[in-house]
Amino acid sequence: MRVAFDVLEDAFYKALVKVGLSDERAGLCAKLFTENQCDGVYSHGLNRFPGLIAKIQSGQIDVAADPACVKALGVVEQWDGKMGIGLVNAHVAMGRAVAIAKEHGMGCVGLRNTNHWMRAGAYGLQAADAGCIGMCWTNTTVLMPPWGAEEKRIGNNPMVMAIPRDGGHLLLDMAMSQYSNGKLEILKQRGEDLPLAGGYDGDGNLTCDPGAILASKRALPIGYWKGSALAVMLDVLAAVISGGQSTHQIGAQGDEYAVSQTFIALDVTSLVGQGVREQIVNCVVNDLQEAGEGVRYPGAGMLRVREESLEQGVLVDDGQWEDLLRMG
Amino acid sequence: MRVAFDVLEDAFYKALVKVGLSDERAGLCAKLFTENQCDGVYSHGLNRFPGLIAKIQSGQIDVAADPACVKALGVVEQWDGKMGIGLVNAHVAMGRAVAIAKEHGMGCVGLRNTNHWMRAGAYGLQAADAGCIGMCWTNTTVLMPPWGAEEKRIGNNPMVMAIPRDGGHLLLDMAMSQYSNGKLEILKQRGEDLPLAGGYDGDGNLTCDPGAILASKRALPIGYWKGSALAVMLDVLAAVISGGQSTHQIGAQGDEYAVSQTFIALDVTSLVGQGVREQIVNCVVNDLQEAGEGVRYPGAGMLRVREESLEQGVLVDDGQWEDLLRMG
Repeated sequence: MRVAFDVLEDAFYKALVKVGLSDERAGLCAKLFTENQCDGVYSHGLNRFPGLIAKIQSGQIDVAADPACVKALGVVEQWDGKMGIGLVNAHVAMGRAVAIAKEHGMGCVGLRNTNHWMRAGAYGLQAADAGCIGMCWTNTTVLMPPWGAEEKRIGNNPMVMAIPRDGGHLLLDMAMSQYSNGKLEILKQRGEDLPLAGGYDGDGNLTCDPGAILASKRALPIGYWKGSALAVMLDVLAAVISGGQSTHQIGAQGDEYAVSQTFIALDVTSLVGQGVREQIVNCVVNDLQEAGEGVRYPGAGMLRVREESLEQGVLVDDGQWEDLLRMG
Repeated sequence: MRVAFDVLEDAFYKALVKVGLSDERAGLCAKLFTENQCDGVYSHGLNRFPGLIAKIQSGQIDVAADPACVKALGVVEQWDGKMGIGLVNAHVAMGRAVAIAKEHGMGCVGLRNTNHWMRAGAYGLQAADAGCIGMCWTNTTVLMPPWGAEEKRIGNNPMVMAIPRDGGHLLLDMAMSQYSNGKLEILKQRGEDLPLAGGYDGDGNLTCDPGAILASKRALPIGYWKGSALAVMLDVLAAVISGGQSTHQIGAQGDEYAVSQTFIALDVTSLVGQGVREQIVNCVVNDLQEAGEGVRYPGAGMLRVREESLEQGVLVDDGQWEDLLRMG
């Protein structure tokens, strides 16, 4: 079914206040969850909300924790997330990177001891809404084998790049695995194959069978050795810049918490001017749109879903929606 | 055959002086070409040298051009490469990013109107040698179709991340195509198939046949839609930050020149301290080394070749070596 944006937002808000979030934090998190669902990122909307609530209730996530800057060197800052709400910490961190960028051209925040930020792209869009180029990435627990190995040891470490544009920002939001576990689960339930090989079966052969990949736990990094190496670099960068944990250490915990993230903002509008920026970005967008009907610029699909959601209401799973109402 | 590092360097130097490079520039370019060959990046060593010389002789590359800062906003600077030597411009740009980082934590240089920098990784290593995290990328002419299209319209836009480490830097140096054209050419000549699909044949089917991919001009981006989107973002970022050309405009020229590049340096050693940095990086490196014999951390393969080259001499193609000696 479809639910109006503000009705959905209000339901999230009530459920968050109920587990102890301040008014302001419940408002921010409700907005982010609703936007994720509105933009069609169903994997990090309603779907993940009960998991967040459970971690708050178990005490793993501290709703009252205030992220704090622990060290600064010019435009680079290290922040401690103090095991608070991942969405709040990430929002504060990107906000700080943007503030530094507005003053000095570019800012970087390394954030440690934080929790799952849900949709990675949200923080790229946050920077772009402020007129900045945004880049951010996070490490995760162990989810894939590195190239050449059978046992999972690296994260899928989502990476985001966002570029502001009047007609809708350009947004790349990609994990280093070819398919997410969520996608594999859905296709397995439907009895469908992946369009392209997404991992290995139990015999070590590449396969399009989502069930076989889930069983072997050998998901494929994008571009084989290339995505594997990129995942490693993003992990080390996030850990080094924040002084926090790497995937190896997070994996040893069993559960995924106290992850490390990097946020970079670049105030390109002040540098090149809005007109020049629009001209350059639109030149690429127009060229892609001429390339064929099936070709999209990064972010185009999201914009289409967002428009539909705002016109017709945000698509929700009936059961998940009822669960949310019960939580409020 | 194998040639000692300094003998190879001297041969490059002489050939570069002969086409009009200053002493200093010939020295820098000779060092970079020799290091590329020494590190096993044969695609951007001796192999590409005659191409550079030809472009200098035709006047496309101006050996006397001095790259200049044209605009600055805090730690972000725009530089004009003035169609000078790509290696010199890139070296100056990363050097400037490092200098800004040493003073302000992080620095970024957007470079436009520049030429092929040969091996992308060289400028990441330059930052890492200075104790900085280095990130850089370039756009290129049109080399691949975007995902969903048949006609080539996007670049393979190599991206670099380097992290300093006492035991050898971590280095990712990757183009957005699954295989380079050079690799396809070599395997085609040998009559060998690619280990994994690298593009489409004339009928639009994924294929491991390098000849079919070269004929269709439909090379595959890493991770299909993901690498395609990343290539687009890197292109727009390079063009916007530098105020320079995007791949679409470079492609319209026919020949590849006046490309756009981004250089970022982050002085992480001052931020986290060398000891902590080493501990974090080595934690990941050790974990990967335990994962199996076939598993390498990013940069490990390069280090192995470098050691071999420095011990036994740098591997060169006999014909290319003789050509180089004739150019000096």
